[in-house]
Amino acid sequence: MLNPFFLNRGPFKLKDILKKSLISFANNNFEGEVIDIKDLNSAVKNCITFYHSKKYKTYANNTKASFCITTENLKNDLSSNCLPIPVDNVLISTAKITEIFYPDSINDDFDNSVSLITNTQYKDFVNYGLNVLIGSNVKIGKNCSIGHNSIIEKNVIIEDNCKIGSNSIIRNSFLKKNVTILDNCVIGKKGFGFFPNDKMNYRYPHIGFVIIDEFSEIGCGATIDRGSMSNTIIGKNSYLDNQIHIGHNVHIGENSIIAGQVGIAGSTKIGNNVRIGGQAGISGHLNIGNNVEIGGGSGVIKDIPDNTKVMGYPAKNLREFLKDNR
Amino acid sequence: MLNPFFLNRGPFKLKDILKKSLISFANNNFEGEVIDIKDLNSAVKNCITFYHSKKYKTYANNTKASFCITTENLKNDLSSNCLPIPVDNVLISTAKITEIFYPDSINDDFDNSVSLITNTQYKDFVNYGLNVLIGSNVKIGKNCSIGHNSIIEKNVIIEDNCKIGSNSIIRNSFLKKNVTILDNCVIGKKGFGFFPNDKMNYRYPHIGFVIIDEFSEIGCGATIDRGSMSNTIIGKNSYLDNQIHIGHNVHIGENSIIAGQVGIAGSTKIGNNVRIGGQAGISGHLNIGNNVEIGGGSGVIKDIPDNTKVMGYPAKNLREFLKDNR
Amino acid sequence: MLNPFFLNRGPFKLKDILKKSLISFANNNFEGEVIDIKDLNSAVKNCITFYHSKKYKTYANNTKASFCITTENLKNDLSSNCLPIPVDNVLISTAKITEIFYPDSINDDFDNSVSLITNTQYKDFVNYGLNVLIGSNVKIGKNCSIGHNSIIEKNVIIEDNCKIGSNSIIRNSFLKKNVTILDNCVIGKKGFGFFPNDKMNYRYPHIGFVIIDEFSEIGCGATIDRGSMSNTIIGKNSYLDNQIHIGHNVHIGENSIIAGQVGIAGSTKIGNNVRIGGQAGISGHLNIGNNVEIGGGSGVIKDIPDNTKVMGYPAKNLREFLKDNR
Repeated sequence: MLNPFFLNRGPFKLKDILKKSLISFANNNFEGEVIDIKDLNSAVKNCITFYHSKKYKTYANNTKASFCITTENLKNDLSSNCLPIPVDNVLISTAKITEIFYPDSINDDFDNSVSLITNTQYKDFVNYGLNVLIGSNVKIGKNCSIGHNSIIEKNVIIEDNCKIGSNSIIRNSFLKKNVTILDNCVIGKKGFGFFPNDKMNYRYPHIGFVIIDEFSEIGCGATIDRGSMSNTIIGKNSYLDNQIHIGHNVHIGENSIIAGQVGIAGSTKIGNNVRIGGQAGISGHLNIGNNVEIGGGSGVIKDIPDNTKVMGYPAKNLREFLKDNR
Repeated sequence: MLNPFFLNRGPFKLKDILKKSLISFANNNFEGEVIDIKDLNSAVKNCITFYHSKKYKTYANNTKASFCITTENLKNDLSSNCLPIPVDNVLISTAKITEIFYPDSINDDFDNSVSLITNTQYKDFVNYGLNVLIGSNVKIGKNCSIGHNSIIEKNVIIEDNCKIGSNSIIRNSFLKKNVTILDNCVIGKKGFGFFPNDKMNYRYPHIGFVIIDEFSEIGCGATIDRGSMSNTIIGKNSYLDNQIHIGHNVHIGENSIIAGQVGIAGSTKIGNNVRIGGQAGISGHLNIGNNVEIGGGSGVIKDIPDNTKVMGYPAKNLREFLKDNR
Repeated sequence: MLNPFFLNRGPFKLKDILKKSLISFANNNFEGEVIDIKDLNSAVKNCITFYHSKKYKTYANNTKASFCITTENLKNDLSSNCLPIPVDNVLISTAKITEIFYPDSINDDFDNSVSLITNTQYKDFVNYGLNVLIGSNVKIGKNCSIGHNSIIEKNVIIEDNCKIGSNSIIRNSFLKKNVTILDNCVIGKKGFGFFPNDKMNYRYPHIGFVIIDEFSEIGCGATIDRGSMSNTIIGKNSYLDNQIHIGHNVHIGENSIIAGQVGIAGSTKIGNNVRIGGQAGISGHLNIGNNVEIGGGSGVIKDIPDNTKVMGYPAKNLREFLKDNR
């Protein structure tokens, strides 16, 4: 999939990449050229990828990548077309290489590419408030409105009939048709991802974006972080109430209803027609099925199959929760 | 009670209302004129009301409304002065009719009626920051202050001695004397109310407002939604800490103290002298008595009588909670 | 320690202080002069202090203060150099006296001392967005950036290499080198501290500030309140995710990682290398040790020793939590 948002500075010669990221590699006189960095699954020929946990063994077996950052222990799991490059710390090396391809994806300093909307083409067909700012690489469709003091930072696509409230900030995001964003939101900022380090933590790049599909609505004060290597996605016709936090790489399905102050940690996938009560929290890297109902205040710490109602902390079957708390 | 905030476009002939909202009704040649839409309890003669659940049977028996959207099963509960109009889905029909009377109450697009305060009469007697915006139908009393970038959108009354911080947005609200609102708040936006629908949810109108009574204080980053058919009310001298979410139609009594990150879901009523610890959550449609103390982090899912201390998730008597967790 | 932020209007004669704060004291013709008000521990000679609970008896025994607001019951605990001044309500009297020394520390009205950054010296060496406001008594180091619509209110020190996002408000704070603050934050406002009172609560002064140490990062939508008599402190290289609330006087150690929507109530001390999962809440006045891990959603209501993993509500040893919830 094309990443329209961050500029890929590649291709680079493999040996230059390894040198810049301080990886010593016996074969570093290899002359191959690397076109991009991708995860095991989405990498294609001439990409570099990374493999750091047995959890992803199936993907490692089948990756189409030509190069892979990995460890001595894991390197034999990789498909035969893929040259393993063993390192001590796969994730830090991966972060360093990603930074070479996408140097703009580490920091989220305020966007100083912006202009007042009155100085752009959008003044003619957007319904805008006072002090609206528009960054570079922004596209806005027909019949949209953007409220006072809102900032559409760089790398944003807004399709037709979208409504954005006041005091909101959006970057690295793709709003499909008929999306509504209310006031005081921050959409598309870098996620909470870094490698802890005693003197100074090491942030890894966030090259993904936030996709909000048609007819969805995001309440006041929401924060929705963009993806790291993949995207954060809100499905069609899903409604999020106020003060919700959505971590990086989260996927939420269609027709979902999420009440106030819910938090969903990074990389969790949520199905269609899911209802989540107020203040519920969902841990990272979980799979929540379709037609699931999660009671208000629940703390979900494991996967939930389709068509299940849960409640509690940790969340369990609703009937069991009610019985235990009669 | 007069609704000063949304303009009632009525009266309308009953048959026109039914036609516009696609309700087929055997007696739709009835010539009566309808002046307003109200709930069972507050409706007066020549109003239309709605009745969708046995829970409200007593109100149905005694309503003064002349017309009522209801179902075949419920229609016989209505008082004899009230003409029942049976429909398939009471709530959707009610939403459609409310939209006819109050078409401006569905969407909360940013308010483009605003002007810079320096272009209004308020420049002469309000203590204001830079970039303060004032909408139409706003009244501000003496000795008030409004911080930088704050937006007083349309339909707001601010009485004497109120202080509003910076970056806050207020609409459809009534702040009585000596109210303080800190920074980054959103007060008076539409609540999280809609009828779920597979392709596109159907939002129902919010014609209520937010009333904040004298000497109350609202912390930074609060969201307080306005009522749907009634109002959201914060009683006198109640203090709310930062990052609190208050749903539509909630009533909070006097002298209450609510700590940070608390969430109160729609239509819950809370008494006087109530103390709520940080991050507690209270489900919707509950009654919390006077002098209640709710421990931090609690999840309240049923009514709480006066003079009770509770804690836990689900919240139970404090003594029991402490015993169970010794 | 010098308090660079609030101006001490003292010294005052003791008898004038007592008169202004309506304290009747047999010896109020005492001619001594009082230089400042401090807690028992940090007070020096010629300071006034306060002592209201046996919990602080050791401090009372050893205080260097010359005067102390206390009660008849407690006054004999004080060191011999300290003149006890018995009152009915120690905390209210203390608040009144603090207000005499620091009259600017009660209210947090928006700062009308600000100017657009383009009208200040900072336009020459700060990387700034549109509509950035700078208050009085602000110092900004080299190589800093401040995003659109952000307000650096009065009494702020920002050292070199700090990055501040857009729509954030900072006052009474000290950001050391290399600190990052993201968007929509409110840092340094008065805490949620007051004496409840039936007609009108009585706010006590907040003369402390917020100190954020080197290389720390604060996520979007955070609220970090300044201290009341002491300071709120975030240690070096600590990372806070989005929508976090930190109460007044909280100390967080170095190298800590705090996930989204966490809330920490006033005066709690947290050690170094602590990890706190999303939505966890920590009660006030607790001591959390070094190297502690607190699971997401936990509610911590008692002290936690070093090197402990906890989870649950109330939080208990992680192993126990997992066993109980198998």
